[in-house]
Amino acid sequence: MALKRYQRYAEELTALIRGGQLAPGTRLPSVREASRARRISPATAFEAYYLLQARGLIESRPRSGFFVRAMVKPAPARGGSAPPRSRHVEVSDLVFEVLEATRRAGIAPLGSAFPAAELFPLRQLARALSIGMRRLDPTRIVEDLPPGNERLRKQIALRYALSGTRVSPDEIILTNGAMEALTLSLQAVTQPGDAVVVESPCFYAALQALERLRLKAVEIPCDARHGIDFAALCTALQRPDVKACWLMPAFQNPTGTSMSEAHRRDFMRELQRHGVPLIEDDVYAELYYGARPLRPLKSFDTSGLVMHCGSFSKCLAPGYRIGWVAGGLRAPEILRAKMMTTLSNAVPSQQALAEYLAHGGYERHLRRLRRVLARQHDIAARLAARHFPAGTRFSSPEGGYFLWVEFPEGVDTLQLHRQALEHDINIAPGQIFSATRKFGNCMRLNFGHPRDPRFEPAIRTIGELAAAALRTR
Amino acid sequence: MALKRYQRYAEELTALIRGGQLAPGTRLPSVREASRARRISPATAFEAYYLLQARGLIESRPRSGFFVRAMVKPAPARGGSAPPRSRHVEVSDLVFEVLEATRRAGIAPLGSAFPAAELFPLRQLARALSIGMRRLDPTRIVEDLPPGNERLRKQIALRYALSGTRVSPDEIILTNGAMEALTLSLQAVTQPGDAVVVESPCFYAALQALERLRLKAVEIPCDARHGIDFAALCTALQRPDVKACWLMPAFQNPTGTSMSEAHRRDFMRELQRHGVPLIEDDVYAELYYGARPLRPLKSFDTSGLVMHCGSFSKCLAPGYRIGWVAGGLRAPEILRAKMMTTLSNAVPSQQALAEYLAHGGYERHLRRLRRVLARQHDIAARLAARHFPAGTRFSSPEGGYFLWVEFPEGVDTLQLHRQALEHDINIAPGQIFSATRKFGNCMRLNFGHPRDPRFEPAIRTIGELAAAALRTR
Repeated sequence: MALKRYQRYAEELTALIRGGQLAPGTRLPSVREASRARRISPATAFEAYYLLQARGLIESRPRSGFFVRAMVKPAPARGGSAPPRSRHVEVSDLVFEVLEATRRAGIAPLGSAFPAAELFPLRQLARALSIGMRRLDPTRIVEDLPPGNERLRKQIALRYALSGTRVSPDEIILTNGAMEALTLSLQAVTQPGDAVVVESPCFYAALQALERLRLKAVEIPCDARHGIDFAALCTALQRPDVKACWLMPAFQNPTGTSMSEAHRRDFMRELQRHGVPLIEDDVYAELYYGARPLRPLKSFDTSGLVMHCGSFSKCLAPGYRIGWVAGGLRAPEILRAKMMTTLSNAVPSQQALAEYLAHGGYERHLRRLRRVLARQHDIAARLAARHFPAGTRFSSPEGGYFLWVEFPEGVDTLQLHRQALEHDINIAPGQIFSATRKFGNCMRLNFGHPRDPRFEPAIRTIGELAAAALRTR
Repeated sequence: MALKRYQRYAEELTALIRGGQLAPGTRLPSVREASRARRISPATAFEAYYLLQARGLIESRPRSGFFVRAMVKPAPARGGSAPPRSRHVEVSDLVFEVLEATRRAGIAPLGSAFPAAELFPLRQLARALSIGMRRLDPTRIVEDLPPGNERLRKQIALRYALSGTRVSPDEIILTNGAMEALTLSLQAVTQPGDAVVVESPCFYAALQALERLRLKAVEIPCDARHGIDFAALCTALQRPDVKACWLMPAFQNPTGTSMSEAHRRDFMRELQRHGVPLIEDDVYAELYYGARPLRPLKSFDTSGLVMHCGSFSKCLAPGYRIGWVAGGLRAPEILRAKMMTTLSNAVPSQQALAEYLAHGGYERHLRRLRRVLARQHDIAARLAARHFPAGTRFSSPEGGYFLWVEFPEGVDTLQLHRQALEHDINIAPGQIFSATRKFGNCMRLNFGHPRDPRFEPAIRTIGELAAAALRTR
């Protein structure tokens, strides 16, 4: 097929950039210059640049023009166990590359962040949505403005009570998923340049939020066997530039590990001693395999330092985008920030969940979901043990749907990610979970798709690719 | 009713702060100190401080403790027509005070930012919502991830085509209302400390966004008679620290004025000459009274500089929280920022609007809505002329549902706002629309509640209060 004019121009530039003739930082001709020189319309030149931007090859800088971007750098050697240093974060390019792959139709979703949609009571939710919207008095839509629907906030406070945590509905602010709760909380307690303690590996969205807010990450090691390095965590609080911690003490993403109850108590005491606020990302709280939920750090907090973030996206209603934060002392600031950024949550989603939680058999759904995930975990652990090369270690989560896999040194999971894509398998390479490109031999494995027949063959293929990598090194 | 312990402590502190014994900036005892000194539990002391925070009397500073806040300052004398200066913005306290009042049940909503809910086809939307959710293949929820539902983006692109604007669906990113679109666009082109050109008076949420992102506002005068000062606007582009403009060229909030088509063309040329990006806030675009829509500045843009922001909140589906930005050259950065902050829009809202726009009689609804608002405008203008004091000027909007009222000097609309509240009337005083507390004699009047019997009596009461203020000055 013949290329259009703008595509031709874009392809020529792409070749020059990829070939290195146009080095990173080079300024491209302006739209006007290009249009004059090539006798194309400005709109055509603009479309070419638009395409190159979308490909991540160039960037526009306000009032200066278009510049060739720096390419994704190769991974540095693994960091070993040097003491945690803080750095500005730049992980997004890689994350977006990986996320994009999860959206390809027909791909085995082992790198996905979501469990299978069929695990959720979507039909009951849709019914609750219809009922809620029918009952809604249109003149009272304002009541769903921040902090959000009161019935729903009361239901959330009730669930806190079940885990022994005293949270008032007034302290709860509904957000567009936990992601917004986390970002607003972070903004409430930090300024650009501050340092924030995070786990390493760490949920990539946390790293992206730090990058975006120009914060430094103090990475505390966390491994498949022992979870977070507790001594290093406590030591980090002494740094005067540390203005917050952002942790997932339950079924951490990506490692699946949890902090023990004794450590929770001790750490909360340390936080209070140093006056450091904690953003407790607890979106997997309901997905425990055991008899009882873990007690959130929030439940030990007597100073209002903990901003506890939750969500229905992983346990009930993916796509409804209802998360929340129980903001403690920072609730008023978070509420204002919410009103200043996205104003309000979608009313249909709020009404649906308020209705469902009041009548919908949430407990029954959760019991079933926990049972399914626990069984899936056993299957995944057995398959990993069977198919992955000798010397591979993996975590033993007690909740959630992620396994953290540490292959022997010599397996490059970014390479593995690209090879697996050719077999229509998506994995999440370890590097996306670090601001410093660590974990080059690790991956996060999603086992939350019980009915997917591709799961076992995919595990086998990954094992073969990893074994081949070890043989040829 | 007997006060609880924490309430007693909070009331004592409130009295001391209000009485001035605890001056702004004073550090309060820590939770620990207070608990020891008053023999109350730390949780009780914490609750007292929480209450004081919610009242806006104290603030917590990370790692330092609790401090008495500075009170809302009285209005300075009006600025006259000095050349625009830029300043850091602090308008939120006042805005939140006014917004809070709009949520009181039973209040006449003349200060509201929303038109009446009964103007919208809420039942048809609810039906579209049910149909959309029933049809949704749960395994394809990922397709509603950013940039958002493709059917809906195509419908939006079609509407652009109607106003003569070429926008590709690929350039459109769905957001949680226009507010998020505006914030993301602003973040895509500015750094803290940069200056942004805005109208003055200006939609307060724009000022809040600048405040939050630590940007400076360059305020360009805009009055009820002549709209924006076009010469001053073009001059401002020469400032090297100006990194963006944020304007509402159609039915501006709060003045209701619009930029002429000739000025649009000229201004777009100026923007291109200086390479300054424009955030075109066009949320009232569909609410024109005339025969045809205004052509957005975006339609004259050949360099991709315009980020055009729209929304369904004001013309179709309040509470659904579906806005968008057609991001031009910045679309890729805005898309990433969206994924990093709130991830995705609510799927039910996206499905409902995609379904409604495809089948729902949107054009018919809009024609009716425009007719109702045009008629309401005539009524409002007639009532204002009859009941407001001689010398009062007001704008002649050609779309939307706001009238900008400039009372004679001597009417203090902040005072008027507080008096009106005693009569269960809410108005939007001029000061909330300025970073520098200008417009002390102005107010924005919402006439978008055609069935509200309180409208005429409210106008009369406001007129009487204003007249009384003029007599006693």
